[in-house]
Amino acid sequence: MKARVHVMLKNGVLDPQGEAVRHALGTLGFDGVNGVRQGKVIELDLADGTSEATIVEMCEKLLANTVIESYSVEVL
Amino acid sequence: MKARVHVMLKNGVLDPQGEAVRHALGTLGFDGVNGVRQGKVIELDLADGTSEATIVEMCEKLLANTVIESYSVEVL
Repeated sequence: MKARVHVMLKNGVLDPQGEAVRHALGTLGFDGVNGVRQGKVIELDLADGTSEATIVEMCEKLLANTVIESYSVEVL
Repeated sequence: MKARVHVMLKNGVLDPQGEAVRHALGTLGFDGVNGVRQGKVIELDLADGTSEATIVEMCEKLLANTVIESYSVEVL
């Protein structure tokens, strides 16, 4: 089975990487870009029958820094 | 309007970051993790009426390195 985890910086946490992308898009002539946030997407290829709870545990223990990042789990 | 862009390394391109995550999950006692690929997710806050073609152009010009990365655009 496959699962996808999105990890994004929480709202209010400064995102310099996203800000750099926003600025670069402006430099390239793309107008109307009001904001950019950049995060991670992690695609997991897991043994069949792995529970969503296990994936959440992976996020809590390793994949996300829950102090500053939020995550969402999507089983494909 | 909001849009989300996923950027992943193409199949066959070595993904050391994903491999490191896979190894770390094993070390933490999570069995059955067959593979991990790590990519980027970029959330764009755009002016209303921005076309999907414009977002694709952003990907081609800046957001993805199309030699080794594939991308997908999702308008939210």
